Order: sequence, then structure tokens, then C-alpha cells
Amino acid sequence: MDPYSVNMDIKPGPLLKHIDNPENLRRLSREQLHQVCEELRQYIIDVVSVHGGHFGASLGVVELTVALHYVFNTPYDQLVWDVGHQAYGHKILTGRRDNFPSNRKYGGLSGFPKRSESPYDTFGVGHSSTSISAALGMAMAAKYKGERDRQVVAVIGDGAMTAGMAFEALNHAGVADSNVLIILNDNCMSIDPNVGALKEYLTDISTSPAYNRVRDDVWKLLGKLPVGKHFTREMAAKLEQSVKGLVSKSSNLFESLKLRYFGPIDGHNITKLVDVLQDMRSIPGPKLLHILTVKGKGYALAEKDQTKWHAPGLFDKVTGEIHKKHFPTPQPPKYQDVFGHTLIELAEANPAIMGITPAMPSGSSLKFMMEKMPNRAFDVGICEQHAATLSAGLATQGLRVFCNIYSSFMQRAYDQVVHDIAIQKLPVVLCLDRAGLVGEDGPTHHGAYDIAYFRCIPNMIISAPMNEQELRNLMYTAQLDSTTQPFVIRYPRGEGVMPEWKTPFQAIEIGKGRKLRDGQELAILSIGHPGNFAAAAIRDLKAEGLQPGHYDLRFVKPLDEELLHEVFRKYKKIVTVEDGTVKGGFGSAILEFMAENGYKADVRILGIPDRIVEHGKPAELQHECAYDAEAIKEAVRSMMSIEVVSTKGWEKK
Amino acid sequence: MDPYSVNMDIKPGPLLKHIDNPENLRRLSREQLHQVCEELRQYIIDVVSVHGGHFGASLGVVELTVALHYVFNTPYDQLVWDVGHQAYGHKILTGRRDNFPSNRKYGGLSGFPKRSESPYDTFGVGHSSTSISAALGMAMAAKYKGERDRQVVAVIGDGAMTAGMAFEALNHAGVADSNVLIILNDNCMSIDPNVGALKEYLTDISTSPAYNRVRDDVWKLLGKLPVGKHFTREMAAKLEQSVKGLVSKSSNLFESLKLRYFGPIDGHNITKLVDVLQDMRSIPGPKLLHILTVKGKGYALAEKDQTKWHAPGLFDKVTGEIHKKHFPTPQPPKYQDVFGHTLIELAEANPAIMGITPAMPSGSSLKFMMEKMPNRAFDVGICEQHAATLSAGLATQGLRVFCNIYSSFMQRAYDQVVHDIAIQKLPVVLCLDRAGLVGEDGPTHHGAYDIAYFRCIPNMIISAPMNEQELRNLMYTAQLDSTTQPFVIRYPRGEGVMPEWKTPFQAIEIGKGRKLRDGQELAILSIGHPGNFAAAAIRDLKAEGLQPGHYDLRFVKPLDEELLHEVFRKYKKIVTVEDGTVKGGFGSAILEFMAENGYKADVRILGIPDRIVEHGKPAELQHECAYDAEAIKEAVRSMMSIEVVSTKGWEKK
Repeated sequence: MDPYSVNMDIKPGPLLKHIDNPENLRRLSREQLHQVCEELRQYIIDVVSVHGGHFGASLGVVELTVALHYVFNTPYDQLVWDVGHQAYGHKILTGRRDNFPSNRKYGGLSGFPKRSESPYDTFGVGHSSTSISAALGMAMAAKYKGERDRQVVAVIGDGAMTAGMAFEALNHAGVADSNVLIILNDNCMSIDPNVGALKEYLTDISTSPAYNRVRDDVWKLLGKLPVGKHFTREMAAKLEQSVKGLVSKSSNLFESLKLRYFGPIDGHNITKLVDVLQDMRSIPGPKLLHILTVKGKGYALAEKDQTKWHAPGLFDKVTGEIHKKHFPTPQPPKYQDVFGHTLIELAEANPAIMGITPAMPSGSSLKFMMEKMPNRAFDVGICEQHAATLSAGLATQGLRVFCNIYSSFMQRAYDQVVHDIAIQKLPVVLCLDRAGLVGEDGPTHHGAYDIAYFRCIPNMIISAPMNEQELRNLMYTAQLDSTTQPFVIRYPRGEGVMPEWKTPFQAIEIGKGRKLRDGQELAILSIGHPGNFAAAAIRDLKAEGLQPGHYDLRFVKPLDEELLHEVFRKYKKIVTVEDGTVKGGFGSAILEFMAENGYKADVRILGIPDRIVEHGKPAELQHECAYDAEAIKEAVRSMMSIEVVSTKGWEKK
Repeated sequence: MDPYSVNMDIKPGPLLKHIDNPENLRRLSREQLHQVCEELRQYIIDVVSVHGGHFGASLGVVELTVALHYVFNTPYDQLVWDVGHQAYGHKILTGRRDNFPSNRKYGGLSGFPKRSESPYDTFGVGHSSTSISAALGMAMAAKYKGERDRQVVAVIGDGAMTAGMAFEALNHAGVADSNVLIILNDNCMSIDPNVGALKEYLTDISTSPAYNRVRDDVWKLLGKLPVGKHFTREMAAKLEQSVKGLVSKSSNLFESLKLRYFGPIDGHNITKLVDVLQDMRSIPGPKLLHILTVKGKGYALAEKDQTKWHAPGLFDKVTGEIHKKHFPTPQPPKYQDVFGHTLIELAEANPAIMGITPAMPSGSSLKFMMEKMPNRAFDVGICEQHAATLSAGLATQGLRVFCNIYSSFMQRAYDQVVHDIAIQKLPVVLCLDRAGLVGEDGPTHHGAYDIAYFRCIPNMIISAPMNEQELRNLMYTAQLDSTTQPFVIRYPRGEGVMPEWKTPFQAIEIGKGRKLRDGQELAILSIGHPGNFAAAAIRDLKAEGLQPGHYDLRFVKPLDEELLHEVFRKYKKIVTVEDGTVKGGFGSAILEFMAENGYKADVRILGIPDRIVEHGKPAELQHECAYDAEAIKEAVRSMMSIEVVSTKGWEKK
């Protein structure tokens, strides 16, 4: 039986099956909540094991989720889940239980909270560290409207807390006098283990045996100080005052930021959570509750290997075996692995190479280099801004940094690329994984905009490989001493096309495209991986007697002007194909070239349309967006048929 | 005498005139440093008063600047100045003394540190909060290369410290084991007074009388504890252990982040600074020195009104009178003031309106509303990311937020606009002041990219007013209940064109442009303020017998397709004009419209070219970039002469 077609009849437990909304939950007794947690956890395991999705994060907050909806008057009270990987339990408790198996599927539920999906989803998420800002906005609005009874809660992980915008929001929340409760869900993990000073600090204050009673102890003991000849009343007063100063002014990082700090408490103790949250409701103003949880809680394998079980794919929930497709022949590798392995090869030959990832060592496959060359490859945490400028700083010293950031996360470091890399013309290599439509993660994660948002920036080299060999050669080219500008290499999520991918390195002249196929009347100009869609379309069209030419430009910037002159001298019909937005993207670059050079041609631009594209499998979305092989064939056929009509004497416009 | 033409013969003092580089400085005795500081301060006052520039920030760090170059072996040891407004003293000491009067002038010195200008300028700056990341990159590179004697110093203000990326960098620096010294220059000011919890915390630890000896006191007193019947040895041990826990684990916000913290010390005591910095040099690893300074130090008026004297323009250094141009008739207002006053008018009528600025209350003129409606308009600190998502959070509650961010700073919140505003289609109004070439601040501050970087994002409305009346009407339109999408209004730095600007409000249909002038053969399509350049050009061209049409599109997105159909049916020659990048901008949007609709025309796109544009007066730069009235005339003439040629039988391509 193919595990990918499994769709068991999954039944929620006896309590859960009657919880259609949090009102139902709130009618249960406190004693029943433990069972609700068990059933909720089991339902998540049942569904995710056969339908896929993020796993560990939601298991880790089962108790928190139940406690929040039990204590707070949702949706009047507002919950904001940071990132949202952990919100499956929330979705199940808020009217989406039976629809939950459609999670992340085309046309189904989103894998993240989403405002259009439910009034309980107060704020759409996906990228990390937005929750405190959003929640503070809601709390300030409530204050302005005089809704002083309204509570707003942000749930944020310790990983997300390392991103700068979380700190910006804390800095404001501490002085904003609004009813916002920040729950710091401390599990020491992002997708990979967390890094950085904050993580160490949180570990310190969580593990130090007496830490949380220290202040009480000090006060108690100070009260017992025996005053006498050697220890005068003044000395006692001074000691008391000094300790008071220490305690009140700097007892805690969060209290330094004027937030009342509570915790840490066990985030899997449902009774305790309910008690504490009830207390929190009655405390006005900004406050932070620190809870300790285990990612993957309740599923032993997931607790043990948390990175692997962040989003494991389909698995046998009893044995824990993760299903893998088996193929008789070698398959093309993932682009990310080609990046990861190639970078090591290059770094072995070039000591100037360094690797940087903001919290995606596994996702980017930089982990291979981090393991092999720990002094040359670094995970800097969920800090795209810092990652970009740090890379610029390294580059000023002659180092050749490969900074790998997913296309949609690159948006977080846009200013740093403009201001610190491009204006200074530093030859940082920006590898944009997950460029194009990423699939199941949906609109927040599609790498749709990078061609457009980088193309307007001077000094940038922007490239996209059509296959693994091209990726390797672009990486090779990017680290050559002769390359002296910022160099973007964008490539998609998932597999390439070449089972035998480990080809010898070859330098590519910057700005040089290639002619893949001579044709007649119409030329297809493609950039990046979708060139393969074009190639497939051309194979089919040949059978219909249509012979478009095919050019892989390789570089969006600089464009291969020589090649384009050749194209426009020969063809008057052009189809451009890209996995980026049609507004301002590769196709627009071609139009600009035409305008500058006075060429006139019919141009059809295929790519990501100017609307929010939802989630689904990449192929489903590429089809919907009409830039897959099928769509390319359609475009070519319709443009070539115009020619047929026009020979009959009809002229378009 | 026109004060704008003053150019006195400014002489540096007797020590300063011999300091051509820091080597010269380092040959002086410690006793002479006080005089160097006096001369440096005076030279800055002399030059800035007659040549203009930023003022208060550099005066505040005169002693620090001298101490740093005296103690550290620059440029081998590397200084990174955050933002860079305060680096005038640094420039003067590092070989640019005599050229300093050219500061911020076309072809002259940059107002910011700039790598191409000097080896002492290790990192180009302009936007805040990049220094720690950049310095850490340099320090990590030094470590990797085995240069353990090399020191890297970042100088960052307490304002810049509130931006998220500074926190991201601290979080990494604390665990990176590199020789980086962070100097926190605490003067309680950005351009406006600082806000937020961090500022309060820094004030606490700086003003608490005994705070900095508290820890020492506690240790001393604990050592004197008399053990006896009522206070046993175990109790004493427990107290000591508890206090130890408090002190070591959480004595300070920065120490929480694993940075060794020193200070605060008086940043105007040159002897003390030299001593402390010499100590710092010998302490390996990451550390933070907190110094207290006064912005504007040594110039009484500047100390007193720090916002006004941040960049006062030209002034009489003796009387402190700031020179203002006097005009016999009313002049057009600054666009920012039209924004500021109009927002109050709108807010008085619409209680849903709120105002947000990230640290630019004066620069954006949101201060008018902050003063008049303190519960509805907020400065959130140097936190563009937070400002954008906070605005989104407020918008979810039905509030209509005008979030005012300079175009180039908007780059800092790019992901938040995509992820939190656009994808969720929240009707936040983003007012982008300083769009286009800003002038003297140069490449880091030009608002060149916003049209291109926003045009690719779905759901966005992007508009640009041609004058004050249009700005008012766009603002009015943006806050109507019928407007349900994110609404960008971009406008330039400086004055508009209408002395009588306070016109009655009129709603503008979203996506509707306007025909300003019918013409022949050629149409000029303009967006925003440069429409006035086009109008001026047309007036002149009329005298030459050329009569181009003129259309002000008002909206880059959505485009007025009806109007464009009218244009392209009538004209086959088009000039587009914008104060944005020609790559992917307004002109490209026109080309996309043409491609989609099968129009063929000759199109010349005028705007900011695809290279880094340096600093100078806006008019100088607009001329250089060839989109001022003169350039528009040139373009029109040359395109219309092609027509003349082609009637003689020659056809272009």
C-alpha cells in the first residue's frame, strides 16, 4: 500500500468530538482538561502522521492551548500565535476539528493562523517574531476604545524571541500600559536548536535550582540580620538598600524592559497553567509569563530528535517509521543539498569562504559545512538583518561569505542588503533557497518577490540556475576573486533534475545566458528552474509542428544584451517564464531592454500573478498561476495562431 | 549679505592644524588632549555654522573620538560609527580636516563614514543600528585569520540600540568570543528624545546614586556579616549564595546577554576615557562600555534644544541665530507639514485615525498630532519593523493608522509590509516621506526604490501626489471606509508648489489619473512631484512649437487603464517621468501595460538610473540623473526629431 494515499478514518476522542468551539471547552470541569489534552494530542498525532504537516511544535503546546482557551474569553480576548507552526491544537479547538485533515492541502486549511479562516485567528502569521507587535496593536486599540476588560495574549517561542522585531516590540510594550500578556514558550528550539546569548540566559534562569526563590530568600534572610557591634544598623540598612537596588532594578532581563516577569513554570502542567493564567487575567498592564515546554511532547521519538520531527512528513504513528518514497534509480537531489555539499567543496579549495545561516542549518543544508568546518560556518539565530550585515562586515575583511536565506525571509533583511551590501558593493553571495512558489507553507513563505525587489538595486548580480550543474557553476563563479559585486543565486525548494549532479566546476561569464534551442517565429526566454518547464513544453509542441526557440538567460541582472539583440533581431514573438512575480520581474526586465533599444515585439510574461497565491503542492500552484509546461504550451499556441490569422490580412491593433 | 554665500576662512587651532592623521594625534601627550578636544569642537562649530550639516551629535562625541584614535591603533584597529552623524570629528582627525568644509556638498565629502573615502571609514553607515553586526563580522574575521591583537570598536547611541538588529547582534556577540568592544553612547536622544523601556532602564542605571558601586558594597558588607545564634553560618552562606546568584545571573541587561558591562562613565572626561579605553584594549572577548554624553556638548544652545540643533542649517555661531531665507510672499509649505497638519484635520473628523512614527516625530511632522492628540499618535522609537506590524495590529481592530516612515527607512520594514499588511489586506496607510532623491544625505537615504519594491506586492495601492492639494486628497481618500487595502502615499523631502495649500478635501477615485494637457505625437506620463518638472518643460517646449500631452497618473498601482488606453490610442511616443528607479518602477509598469494590451510605442523612461547616486542638492542630483525639466525637454526634443527623420523615409529598426 502506498503510504501517500492513506486516508484512515480518524476519530477524535469522546470529549474532543464535542468541542466545536472554545465555549464547549469552557463548560468542562477543570478535572476533565487533562483528558482533553490527551485527546487533542492524540488527534494531532493521528492526523499529522497520515496527512503531514508540522508536528513537534503543536505537541509542545497542547496544554497551553487548552488552558488559554479555557481561561480566556476567546475570540473577544485575542490570541496571537507567533509563527503559527504550533497552532494546530488551536485550530482543532476553534471549529476546525473535522476539517483539520485538509491542513496544508490545496483548497484546505492553512498550516498557519489566518484571519480569513476564523475569527479566532486574530492575526495571520508564518514568519517569526511578529506576535508581540501585533498583540500590542490590538491591546492599544482596546485601551483607546475603552475596552479595559479585553485581554490580548501573544505566544512566542524562545527562538522567535531572538529576532530583532520581538525586542523592538518588548521595548514598546514595557512602556505602553496596555493589557498584553506575552507568553514565552521556552523549548530551546527553533527548527534547529536555538543559539545565542538569550538562549543561554533563559537556560540559566530556568535551570538554576534556587533561582526563582532567590529574591524571596534574600528578603527573608535580610530580615533576620543580627545587628551588633561588628554589624551596625547603618550597615544593615545599607546592605538592605543595596540588595533592594539589585533586585528591583535588574532582577531580570525582561524586568529591565519594564515588563512584569512571571515564571518559569512547567508548560505541561495543565492545572498549574490554568491557575497561573487566571492570575494573569487579573493583572493589568504588560507582563511576561515564561513557560517551559518540550517540543514534540508526548511522542517519544519527536521529543528525542526535535529537528527531524519538526515536520517529518508522513509516518507510521505506532512504529515511528517515516515513510520515504523508494525509487529503483538514482533521483535528482534537492537543490539545498547541492548547495550544502558544493559549498564544502568550494570552501576546501578557497580558505576565504565562510557560511552564514539565520536559523536554517537543516533547511539550507549549511549544516554539512557547520559540522565539517565549525570555525567557518555559523548559525546566527532568527536574525536575517544581523546575518546580512554580519556578512557585509566579514566581506570587508576579504572573506567570501555565502549567506543562505530563504527568499521570503530575505525580505527581513532588505534594507541591510541595500544599505550594507549593495551600496558598498561588497561581494557577499546571497543564496536564496525556496525561491518561487514553495507549496504547502503558502503565501507567507512563497519566494515570489525577490527578483523584483532586488532588480531595482544597483550593483547586484542576480542569477538563477536551471539545474544542479548550473547552481554549482554559479556558486563557483560567485566566489572567484574576479567577482567583485553582491551575487544573488536564487533556486527553488525541492528536487532538481539531474541525478548525476556532481559535475566539474566551470566559471560562467557574469551576465551570459545560453541558447538552448534555435526556433522559428517565437522565442521562450526563461530564468531559473522553470526553464525545465519550457523545455518540456517545447518537446510537446514539436509534435504539433511548432518550433519555438529557447534561451536560458541565467542572469536577471545584468541581462545578456548580446544574446537579447540576437533574439529580438530574429523573433517578433516572445514568451518569458519565471517563478517570480510578473510585476517588475524578469519579464519586465526584458520589456525595459526592448524599450531602451527600440525593439517591438509581442511579449507574453508568464510567472506569479499579482495576487496572493494560497497553499498547495508546487505543481498545483504553478498550474494555477499558469507558468507550468501546460501553460507555456497554451501561450505559445495562442501567440502563434495570431500569426496564422494575421497572414489572412488581419492585423492586431 | 546673504548668509548662504558666506564662506569664511576657517582655521583649525594650533594643535589640530598639525593632526593630519591619528599617528600625529598619538604623538601628543595625554595632557595635550584636552586642548585637542577644544580645538576640534571649535573647528566643528566654525565649519558647520557656515557650511551646514549635522551638529549636535558630533559635538557630543568629541572627547570619545579623540580618545578612541589616541588609544586604538586605527586603522588597523577598526572603528564603526553607528548612523554616522557623529563622525565629523573622526573625519577631521583622519586626513579630511582641510576638505571638511566640502562636507555634504555635491562632489564633496559624504556626511557619513564611507569606505571609498578613507581607510579609517571601515563601514559605510547612514541607517541606524548596523554597527554591532558589522563590527562583529570584522572581529570574527580577525579571529579566523589569527589576528588576535586586532581590536574592533562599534560606537552606537542609545537610540540606535532600540532597533531590533542591534539586539540581534548583541545576542550573537555575547557568545561569539571575538574582540569586539561596543561603546554605548548614551545621550537620551535620537533626533527627537528617545522613547521606550530601554531608555528608561538606561536612565535608571545611570542616575541611581549608588548603583554602580552596589555590587561592590554588597560584597564588602556580606564579608562583615556577624554570625551568631540568630544568624547561623548556614544562613550567611545561603544569603551569600543567593546574592551571588542575583549578581552573577542578572545584574544587568547586557550581562544577561553575556557581554561584560562597564560603566557608566562620563563621556566628556577625556582623561578618564583614555584610561578606561586602555583597560578595555587588554580585556579579550565581547564587552560593552556605557558612556554618558550630552548631545551638542560645548555649544549651550545646542545642549538646550537638542532636536532643533541636530541639523540646524547655517547659523551665526556667536549669537546662535539660525539663518532663514526671507521671502516677500507666502511660500509653499514642506510636504511633511502638509502631512502633519492635514492628519490632524482628518483625525478630528474621524476617530478611527491613529498616527505612528518610528523616531521621526519632527522629521515627519507627526509631532503636531502627538502634541494635540497624545492618545492617538505615537513615536515608537527606531523600530520600523515594529511600527509596521503594530499598525497592522491596530488595523485589525478597525482603526485607520497613518504610519509615516521615510522611503529609505521603509526598507527596514519590507517583510512586515508584505507579511503583516499586504497579505492580510489591512488598510494601513503608509506615508513615505523623503521619497525620491533626498539630497545631502546621499545614497543611504535616497528614497529611490519604493515604487519598485512595493509594486510587486499584491493588494497594494501606491500613489504619489503632484502637489499639496493632491497629497491632502490622497490622505483623505486613504482613510475613507470604502478604502479597504494598504495605501501607500509617497512624497518628497522639502517644499511643494502651492503657497495656498489648505484646499478643501475631495475624494479621488482609486486608480484614477488625470489628463493635464492634451498634446500631439508625444505624451509625458508622470507620477508624483516630478510632474511639475514635466509641466515646466512643456511650457518651454511650447515656445519651440512642440506640444506634448501631459498625464499625471497619480497611482502607480492600480494604473488608470482607461486613461492609458486613451493615451496609447493617440500617441506613439511616450516619455515617463518619476523620482524612483528606472528598473522596475513606474516606467516599467507602463511597459507591462503595453505588453499586456499589445500596444507598440517608443518609450523613454526618465528617473533614477541603475547606479548609486551620491549626495548633493536635490536639483543637482535630479539634473545629473536626467529627470529634471531640462532633461525632459531634451528627451522630448530628441524623440520628436526622430519623427522628422522618419518622414524622410528612414525607419528606426
